[in-house]
Amino acid sequence: MSFETIKYEVADQILTITLNRPDKLNAFNPAMQHELIEAFDKADADDDIRAIIVTGEGRAFCAGADLSSGADTFDRDARRGPVRRNADGSADYSDPQVRDGGGQVTLRIFKCLKPVIAAVNGPAVGIGVTMQLAMDIRIASEAARFGFVFSQRGIVPEAASSWFLPRIVGIAQALEWCYTGRVFPAQEALDGKLVSRVVPADQLLETARTLAKEIAAKTAPVSVALIRQMMWRMLGADDPMEAHKIDSRGIYERGRSDDVKEGVSSFLEKRPAQFKNKITTDMPPYFPWWDEREYK
Amino acid sequence: MSFETIKYEVADQILTITLNRPDKLNAFNPAMQHELIEAFDKADADDDIRAIIVTGEGRAFCAGADLSSGADTFDRDARRGPVRRNADGSADYSDPQVRDGGGQVTLRIFKCLKPVIAAVNGPAVGIGVTMQLAMDIRIASEAARFGFVFSQRGIVPEAASSWFLPRIVGIAQALEWCYTGRVFPAQEALDGKLVSRVVPADQLLETARTLAKEIAAKTAPVSVALIRQMMWRMLGADDPMEAHKIDSRGIYERGRSDDVKEGVSSFLEKRPAQFKNKITTDMPPYFPWWDEREYK
Amino acid sequence: MSFETIKYEVADQILTITLNRPDKLNAFNPAMQHELIEAFDKADADDDIRAIIVTGEGRAFCAGADLSSGADTFDRDARRGPVRRNADGSADYSDPQVRDGGGQVTLRIFKCLKPVIAAVNGPAVGIGVTMQLAMDIRIASEAARFGFVFSQRGIVPEAASSWFLPRIVGIAQALEWCYTGRVFPAQEALDGKLVSRVVPADQLLETARTLAKEIAAKTAPVSVALIRQMMWRMLGADDPMEAHKIDSRGIYERGRSDDVKEGVSSFLEKRPAQFKNKITTDMPPYFPWWDEREYK
Repeated sequence: MSFETIKYEVADQILTITLNRPDKLNAFNPAMQHELIEAFDKADADDDIRAIIVTGEGRAFCAGADLSSGADTFDRDARRGPVRRNADGSADYSDPQVRDGGGQVTLRIFKCLKPVIAAVNGPAVGIGVTMQLAMDIRIASEAARFGFVFSQRGIVPEAASSWFLPRIVGIAQALEWCYTGRVFPAQEALDGKLVSRVVPADQLLETARTLAKEIAAKTAPVSVALIRQMMWRMLGADDPMEAHKIDSRGIYERGRSDDVKEGVSSFLEKRPAQFKNKITTDMPPYFPWWDEREYK
Repeated sequence: MSFETIKYEVADQILTITLNRPDKLNAFNPAMQHELIEAFDKADADDDIRAIIVTGEGRAFCAGADLSSGADTFDRDARRGPVRRNADGSADYSDPQVRDGGGQVTLRIFKCLKPVIAAVNGPAVGIGVTMQLAMDIRIASEAARFGFVFSQRGIVPEAASSWFLPRIVGIAQALEWCYTGRVFPAQEALDGKLVSRVVPADQLLETARTLAKEIAAKTAPVSVALIRQMMWRMLGADDPMEAHKIDSRGIYERGRSDDVKEGVSSFLEKRPAQFKNKITTDMPPYFPWWDEREYK
Repeated sequence: MSFETIKYEVADQILTITLNRPDKLNAFNPAMQHELIEAFDKADADDDIRAIIVTGEGRAFCAGADLSSGADTFDRDARRGPVRRNADGSADYSDPQVRDGGGQVTLRIFKCLKPVIAAVNGPAVGIGVTMQLAMDIRIASEAARFGFVFSQRGIVPEAASSWFLPRIVGIAQALEWCYTGRVFPAQEALDGKLVSRVVPADQLLETARTLAKEIAAKTAPVSVALIRQMMWRMLGADDPMEAHKIDSRGIYERGRSDDVKEGVSSFLEKRPAQFKNKITTDMPPYFPWWDEREYK
């Protein structure tokens, strides 16, 4: 791998992506944006990867956007030339150049086919925490701290966090953290359901790996991929009938698969299952069942 | 009643449905599917029933799908002949034969007009737990255990659980339980908000009945029926204005009803209310206000 | 101000709205409905107001609808003449006279541009609690009590609470409180996530003010206004791409603003930020990005 801002390491069927600009507290920049997206592309295409852990090198998880450009950091036109214009001179928001970089990362994670676990080793601020919201499960070190600091910088939450955050922690907690912009410790994140558990720093990666291995050891990759998309996609569906339509196809198609025959037989025979179906070749014909929403 | 796989017992205005295949740990089969749907139909049509408790006979709540057919259990075509085909030979998913049986049960419970309380007496696995998700409130015995075991069998979650589960326990918890397929104890279910409380085994039914009686004793049946559908249906609505439209009709129509006059008068006179309106005859003219979503 | 049923007091950039019919336990009536809406209109138009606290005068927060009209309290036609009729004699629900008054208040609060904190000093019943659901954060005194008592009066929940409540406390808790209509203490509200914290009565207002001041002291008003609408509106959006579209515009437009340049510079210089942009004049051109849903 030739990544510059992240490390990409596979061991025991687990990919660990490590944000790797420790001298900058792993601050997020365009290179990291593109490399994270590429890393998730590679992970989805690699059947040897059963789960993904995202963590940070050094003492931080990610300190947020790289502010080394100073006051112009978020002034896109000043830094990279103006975006496309409408006839009246206003910005044409359909120009892909307008797109928030953090959101491109979280939308990529959203459609990932493997479980994604954030192992939050230290401060996670701004995009450092909003990027975690499209991950499935967050585990924090006691050294972790979190901050949705946008209101203190005069900007707005990004990375589609206005969709993710209230669904994860509830609207009241989401608003309190975003209104104040306060930086808060791991325990407050746990109390507020932002993270699933808090562990001593030296047990963080082991805790994440234990969970990842539990998934990798006993479960069918195609089932796990379908579960991820079923749960996340149905979170936006307006009626349980929409789930029933997809469930029905899933039970029908997977019910005929070698994996299910093995899953049931191994259970009845009280032995470990050996699942053969792969994500790259054996996803059911109805997948994907949605039209990917376009940016415009 | 001539049910074979469930018991249907009414006492003190409370219907108790007991999954009743104790020698099979109440495993779910097509007969149970049809009988559960019939039982909810009967309950909605019977004004003497004010609340429904669902529990299991013997030591289990429900051990999941009956696996006595072995590896072919979920292979619909192998067991019951092929479903309708498209011109290209692929399965026609609009064939009702494709429909997941568990989902037919939960969608029926979803549109029920009485409060539904699960009293989880023992292991509840697969459809044994997903069928509970369309029930309103889950109370667990200390002997209860839960498992969304689909990933360990190579299959997918069903019974529209991808819609229900993340809304009940949050997306992170839903994914962790479904990814791992682990079987977990009542306390973990309580911590994760899958159940509202955990009680000693010998207090389970009494706890459920006390709650059911609290509802039956003091409240108006038509109000409770409307509450059930308002809350569940609005969980899928995209804007609070949709609730305001229905609220307004409800306040207007019920505000003129004998029940409300009795409800207000009895409150002012500090005496118990005697509500006369019935679900079978006195639902307001705007009910139902939605078009039932079709399977297709 | 010439309000009769509420007090409207601004100090330290915080508006405190006090429900002010203490001899009636602040019971809600049409005058209070209109005055609350007017108060929120004024608050949004006043850049000197950074946050809003809503509390009650005397020993109650709000005892619910004023029942001094007795059994006819909710009979709109009997009290104020019939609403518009369809050809078949049924009520024309599109008549604005049908609209629930409580819902008009909560929908107005929903579109507010300032943080809204409920400081619940005592009993909050019926509309007394449902009006709080469109507020952002609820803080309760130990003397607070709550009751979704609709089922005990024969009526239905209003104020769009069927949309708000399950999103705040979960569907199981929402149904249990609404089915039973029970009045419950502050601790149960805390356990059920209806309120964010419970404090001794004599610390209630100070706690709310401390939070309001934390927001007012350090954050940009335009950011906070956008955060409020982003979070609440996206709670109804069906796909995170909808958030990404709005985020992208926000990062682009606010990224060029003086506020962001000040926010980043002050952070780098380790000094307090001085934000100049105002809600009345500096909201970005894409705001509002939604079509307000109409009553019909």
